[in-house]
Amino acid sequence: MLYVVGTGVYKAQLTQEVIEIIERGDVIYGSASAIEMVKDLFLLEKEKNKKLKEIVNYGKETYLKIIEESRFREVVVLSKGDPMVSGLGTVFSGLILGEKLKIVPGISSVQLALSRLGIDLTDVVVVSAHGKIPELEQELELLDYRDMLVLADRKFDLKKLGRREIIILENLGMNGENIKTGRADTLEIESDYSIIYVKKQV
Amino acid sequence: MLYVVGTGVYKAQLTQEVIEIIERGDVIYGSASAIEMVKDLFLLEKEKNKKLKEIVNYGKETYLKIIEESRFREVVVLSKGDPMVSGLGTVFSGLILGEKLKIVPGISSVQLALSRLGIDLTDVVVVSAHGKIPELEQELELLDYRDMLVLADRKFDLKKLGRREIIILENLGMNGENIKTGRADTLEIESDYSIIYVKKQV
Repeated sequence: MLYVVGTGVYKAQLTQEVIEIIERGDVIYGSASAIEMVKDLFLLEKEKNKKLKEIVNYGKETYLKIIEESRFREVVVLSKGDPMVSGLGTVFSGLILGEKLKIVPGISSVQLALSRLGIDLTDVVVVSAHGKIPELEQELELLDYRDMLVLADRKFDLKKLGRREIIILENLGMNGENIKTGRADTLEIESDYSIIYVKKQV
Repeated sequence: MLYVVGTGVYKAQLTQEVIEIIERGDVIYGSASAIEMVKDLFLLEKEKNKKLKEIVNYGKETYLKIIEESRFREVVVLSKGDPMVSGLGTVFSGLILGEKLKIVPGISSVQLALSRLGIDLTDVVVVSAHGKIPELEQELELLDYRDMLVLADRKFDLKKLGRREIIILENLGMNGENIKTGRADTLEIESDYSIIYVKKQV
């Protein structure tokens, strides 16, 4: 069985359910920072080294190997935040049958952004700008209908947002959390973990 | 201080962070079912009775009383799922200054729906149909851009979705979880905890 579990953004956001799945798992894959978050769940150094495996090369070949391993063992893949928010959930959903995969939610940075802004998920549209710049133009049309949260990294070109008033939320729930407000043409994105809040066009 | 915390949909979805806030709180407000979810965190019967208070009348008068109480005590309000998904977060954000309010995310039924469907949040738009039928017509225009998740109860009129192919996800994470697929004009909503998945118009 393959479990793709959301760890939340920081350790205290781990759910009971996810902790239990990690503790029960035969092998746990994740990024260095995701592994760091869960390693204290294993008290024995020997067990840590045996079970926790860092994913170094993200890509289809790695995913297929993990899936192959999950035919015989309980395999857990850690996804920082929530697996279904610009995460690994859809990737694995596309590669393995539903009955062999369990995706378990975690708290995402989008939820942190909404709680900081005091805005409901049903009043916004969430856009991922990670490697999808060409499609972004079309996504911006959604600003006619709703406020927008754009998940962005330092490569994101703020010029695409013109002179709109925006809020940039950087490193939410992490070290260096910072929230800054201003016109898009006067601000700069300084973190690869940024969420840009753009108000609906009126 | 006032804490509005998401409990998740079921008990195992409680995060460490939320458990700690509840344990530390002087008084905990919530619906009967939210209180039921957290009552085992208090071992002494006496403490349970003193701290846990069911909200019977939801409305501004109750919210203002809770806010008044939070001036002198650590008050926690439980919000099933996530406070920022058609929840109490925006209500309290509108009534109290940011520095006196901490909103803490929880896992929502929307996240469960996305994990079951294998669809990313950044590919959908989430609409609340709870008591906003007139606005729904306009929201449906968003189907030109994205797939849609509609949070609905039994009062929702499926005719508004015409003859579209839909998936209804009922009671996700609760007793009686059920997922059914078909044309909107042939299905029926049988739970007040339903999410309707509608595919983008092509």
